[in-house]
Amino acid sequence: MLLAILFIFSFLFSSSNALVGDFCVADLKGLQSPAGYSCKTAVTVDDFVFSGLAAAGNTSNLIKAAVTPAFVAQFPGVNGLGLSMARLDLAVDGVVPMHTHPAGSEILLVVQGSICAGFISSANVVYFKSLKRGDIMVFPQGLLHFQFNAGKSPAVAFVSFSSPSPGLQILDFALFANDLPSDIIVKTTFLDKAQVKKLKAVLGGTA
Amino acid sequence: MLLAILFIFSFLFSSSNALVGDFCVADLKGLQSPAGYSCKTAVTVDDFVFSGLAAAGNTSNLIKAAVTPAFVAQFPGVNGLGLSMARLDLAVDGVVPMHTHPAGSEILLVVQGSICAGFISSANVVYFKSLKRGDIMVFPQGLLHFQFNAGKSPAVAFVSFSSPSPGLQILDFALFANDLPSDIIVKTTFLDKAQVKKLKAVLGGTA
Amino acid sequence: MLLAILFIFSFLFSSSNALVGDFCVADLKGLQSPAGYSCKTAVTVDDFVFSGLAAAGNTSNLIKAAVTPAFVAQFPGVNGLGLSMARLDLAVDGVVPMHTHPAGSEILLVVQGSICAGFISSANVVYFKSLKRGDIMVFPQGLLHFQFNAGKSPAVAFVSFSSPSPGLQILDFALFANDLPSDIIVKTTFLDKAQVKKLKAVLGGTA
Amino acid sequence: MLLAILFIFSFLFSSSNALVGDFCVADLKGLQSPAGYSCKTAVTVDDFVFSGLAAAGNTSNLIKAAVTPAFVAQFPGVNGLGLSMARLDLAVDGVVPMHTHPAGSEILLVVQGSICAGFISSANVVYFKSLKRGDIMVFPQGLLHFQFNAGKSPAVAFVSFSSPSPGLQILDFALFANDLPSDIIVKTTFLDKAQVKKLKAVLGGTA
Amino acid sequence: MLLAILFIFSFLFSSSNALVGDFCVADLKGLQSPAGYSCKTAVTVDDFVFSGLAAAGNTSNLIKAAVTPAFVAQFPGVNGLGLSMARLDLAVDGVVPMHTHPAGSEILLVVQGSICAGFISSANVVYFKSLKRGDIMVFPQGLLHFQFNAGKSPAVAFVSFSSPSPGLQILDFALFANDLPSDIIVKTTFLDKAQVKKLKAVLGGTA
Amino acid sequence: MLLAILFIFSFLFSSSNALVGDFCVADLKGLQSPAGYSCKTAVTVDDFVFSGLAAAGNTSNLIKAAVTPAFVAQFPGVNGLGLSMARLDLAVDGVVPMHTHPAGSEILLVVQGSICAGFISSANVVYFKSLKRGDIMVFPQGLLHFQFNAGKSPAVAFVSFSSPSPGLQILDFALFANDLPSDIIVKTTFLDKAQVKKLKAVLGGTA
Repeated sequence: MLLAILFIFSFLFSSSNALVGDFCVADLKGLQSPAGYSCKTAVTVDDFVFSGLAAAGNTSNLIKAAVTPAFVAQFPGVNGLGLSMARLDLAVDGVVPMHTHPAGSEILLVVQGSICAGFISSANVVYFKSLKRGDIMVFPQGLLHFQFNAGKSPAVAFVSFSSPSPGLQILDFALFANDLPSDIIVKTTFLDKAQVKKLKAVLGGTA
Repeated sequence: MLLAILFIFSFLFSSSNALVGDFCVADLKGLQSPAGYSCKTAVTVDDFVFSGLAAAGNTSNLIKAAVTPAFVAQFPGVNGLGLSMARLDLAVDGVVPMHTHPAGSEILLVVQGSICAGFISSANVVYFKSLKRGDIMVFPQGLLHFQFNAGKSPAVAFVSFSSPSPGLQILDFALFANDLPSDIIVKTTFLDKAQVKKLKAVLGGTA
Repeated sequence: MLLAILFIFSFLFSSSNALVGDFCVADLKGLQSPAGYSCKTAVTVDDFVFSGLAAAGNTSNLIKAAVTPAFVAQFPGVNGLGLSMARLDLAVDGVVPMHTHPAGSEILLVVQGSICAGFISSANVVYFKSLKRGDIMVFPQGLLHFQFNAGKSPAVAFVSFSSPSPGLQILDFALFANDLPSDIIVKTTFLDKAQVKKLKAVLGGTA
Repeated sequence: MLLAILFIFSFLFSSSNALVGDFCVADLKGLQSPAGYSCKTAVTVDDFVFSGLAAAGNTSNLIKAAVTPAFVAQFPGVNGLGLSMARLDLAVDGVVPMHTHPAGSEILLVVQGSICAGFISSANVVYFKSLKRGDIMVFPQGLLHFQFNAGKSPAVAFVSFSSPSPGLQILDFALFANDLPSDIIVKTTFLDKAQVKKLKAVLGGTA
Repeated sequence: MLLAILFIFSFLFSSSNALVGDFCVADLKGLQSPAGYSCKTAVTVDDFVFSGLAAAGNTSNLIKAAVTPAFVAQFPGVNGLGLSMARLDLAVDGVVPMHTHPAGSEILLVVQGSICAGFISSANVVYFKSLKRGDIMVFPQGLLHFQFNAGKSPAVAFVSFSSPSPGLQILDFALFANDLPSDIIVKTTFLDKAQVKKLKAVLGGTA
Repeated sequence: MLLAILFIFSFLFSSSNALVGDFCVADLKGLQSPAGYSCKTAVTVDDFVFSGLAAAGNTSNLIKAAVTPAFVAQFPGVNGLGLSMARLDLAVDGVVPMHTHPAGSEILLVVQGSICAGFISSANVVYFKSLKRGDIMVFPQGLLHFQFNAGKSPAVAFVSFSSPSPGLQILDFALFANDLPSDIIVKTTFLDKAQVKKLKAVLGGTA
């Protein structure tokens, strides 16, 4: 019987499920290295499935928007696999403020409503467009980009990234929600000090 | 005035928009290299937007399913950016047959209906689950996987890949839709010759 | 004396032998990450030599063939170095069934006898040829391929991979040697249920 | 004589100097691909040497600073080699405004004077310090960072990048030196419209 | 009939065989980029097969050895696939002199005779051993290494590389077979000038 | 108030500062993997700043030169970021002997004096030139290269690498400062045995 084949090949399969080269589900309590998290040893199908994007994020806030990530820190199954996702909910007038992903390119897919999205190249050229349901738009790695609701009803989008951990640097938070001294902000952005102080006040920044 | 700054930095921006490191929209009629297509020189926002996934694919076929890709060959804006997408339409009883993507990992996002999806690891372990709307599932690079409609109404999913050109090798097409001699198929798959001949007949294979 | 040079440069060499960037012999009992195993600290020449491919594998089985891997799990010295090997023994009528390596390209080198080898592209084109002693053939990453003895005497080949852990997914094992339900196999492969049941029986599959 | 060795090995060296894997000096008028420029065929030592960083940049401008790049577009020898450089001249009170390099990490080396440098992480934590002559500081890829003269005399620094084409996105130029509509800027940055208009005026932006 | 499936998927396969992501057989007369050669458009199985390693190299020379490469320049099928091979023939007393591969790690497989092989780490530690038929040894990227016949009969080995174009820098040729001035060699190697002149004479070097 | 935004995004920032994808400061006492060191958990600005290159190295030795590295082992902040640096001090007649960096390309920047620098390609072509203050020169990965003081006063250079751990293999140390048997050196380098013995004596080699 062919059963004998099993013995020939089976030693190939004697190591753990977390075979390097097949997959490496993140052990979120394990070590991190430049390549990602160390691998979890016992794995089930639930490690590869994530339901956290099913529900709308809470848009009852000033930007009338919510970003729900499924990066490796939320969805350990993508560790080392070179991709991840997130969900965007935009109420009417909702906006995802100017931001970058330092470590990944992005594709946005509009699944509900209409969204105006754009990015700015290193050459300072602006590329923006109003997208309808079913449209996709790609944002090259590391460039400033934004999205806002371009319609009169709530909008929903799902975004994909070329990294399990693309990062997210929101311009206003980076500048105004920490203790970077106002004088340094003024000096390096040419913004008026009053403007800086005003935004620090609302975003919780100090100094 | 600050205008003078422009002169200092402007020589940085004198090269074409298709700056290496920012983006490289594919010139689909240009040369291909192992890194992708050569870069298009004149670029507009429309190079970064793709509407081809907006409409449902035609599922009036035997598998009752359609796959609509937005790989680099359809969506030149993703060239070199490490990601791409596709749309899956599954009528009732629709199925995306067993297949692999030789060059990319995948995340499937269910946006309508219910889909049963699974993959098989190198250790021959099967991971499959019925997914509801909003669920996502990751399929590690190069492994056999499948999706089929698990509900009683049409289902739609969008899939993201970790490569602009992940490839798609559908098992039945690879085995039965070309001129690979039946004797070789029998010898290398242990399928009965009658089974091979039957599937070659329906899929258009010869030899 | 030039001996003094030693003092100048020696602080460069004060870290362990397992210098990142030179080599990283796998500690097989250590942690795995997406980049491979953690590095062993004490290293000798024997970590870089492997004799497990010297002896023929046992081909007294139904496929009349044996695959002996020297992947990182068997040969820790290749960890992080981007390559590995394996040995193929094919008795008369021996066959290495249809399979893929999800994470690596392969070159096959025939060192004894004659081997017919082939692969199938994403475009469903078949590339196969009978190879003689000394011939080499390359199989691009992730594509289905096969090898069988094309002569009247035993054949031996050595295969090289572009990864320390290329993986190995044998089609028949993936489909028929686990608990993937027969109905799902039928649905996603178009094989007849009787065919599926027959192969599950010989390969030890259930469900 | 050993001369005979030459005949044995010489066929290895019959291809052009621009051997793939050794180096690939950019043909700046050639094609670009995601991996860089196509290779120049005739190469001399001058392709590997660049003198454009020897002279101080002109700091007679409002930021009292100059950035002189030696990216692949200026220094074709670095094409495909994974690194590049630039020179920073900072007059008294000079500042390199808040910016990112979308495609590369940076190390700054102070060779004259004193420079205050900092970056902001995705977690909105600010890391900044006054650096003296001989100090180096690393700025991780894609994160907002800045430098300004922290002393009472001119300062000079050289910066190294982990890419031949790291890109440079200066925040003020990205926001205010193009035709991105003021309303969109206001909406996506929370800046006051008057502030936006003021900076557009000085930086040459429209809309 | 299932034939209808063909229509659904066929548009995926309408581009050329040289699909980015599947394979990219080198057009050796085409352009080179940092990622390799541009892709050939018409491809047959013979592009993936190479017979040039079948015959022994000519060892009637002073080193009593021959190296026959199957790098991308000889075997275009490996372009972009991350691996290549070469054949080593060592007559009795044959030697492959001290050398490096700047762009790839290597595995040596002894198929006939006995070979003493070794490498030297960045920490100046020597790892060497006499290998028998069937043994394999790995040489980490870029490190000095050597092989010589350790037995009393001819030896043959096949070597695999982790790059289609690993490069080959033979120490004696690099130092003594070109016009690098003897004074510079003496200054940078501490060799006696007489020694330098002697080796320049036999290897054809000038200056 | 906009303060509410904080609640929406804040869960993104709840993990440690050593976020995969942003940076991964090396824990030098932690594990190493092929991708570098594991990440330190508590990080301050001082992890990103290194002052060890500020002081001149001691050139009171026979080569009249000193190399001071800021590789990951000295400067943990560069772990995983793809670059590092070093300082070269060359007294009058000082020389950095023939060497390679197995894992990185290099750019040399002359900041004081005049330096003659060169490298040798795989094709045995020599590229060398006398560089003045402010000149930069690139050395492709893995190739033999050298630098020596070309003037009549001390020279200083800073070198950048395309890897946090480029390695450093100095030819004379690799050959003559360890226990590699003299007979093997003679056999694999064609140097006279007396020459080998002489250099072993000064460099501390045995055997």
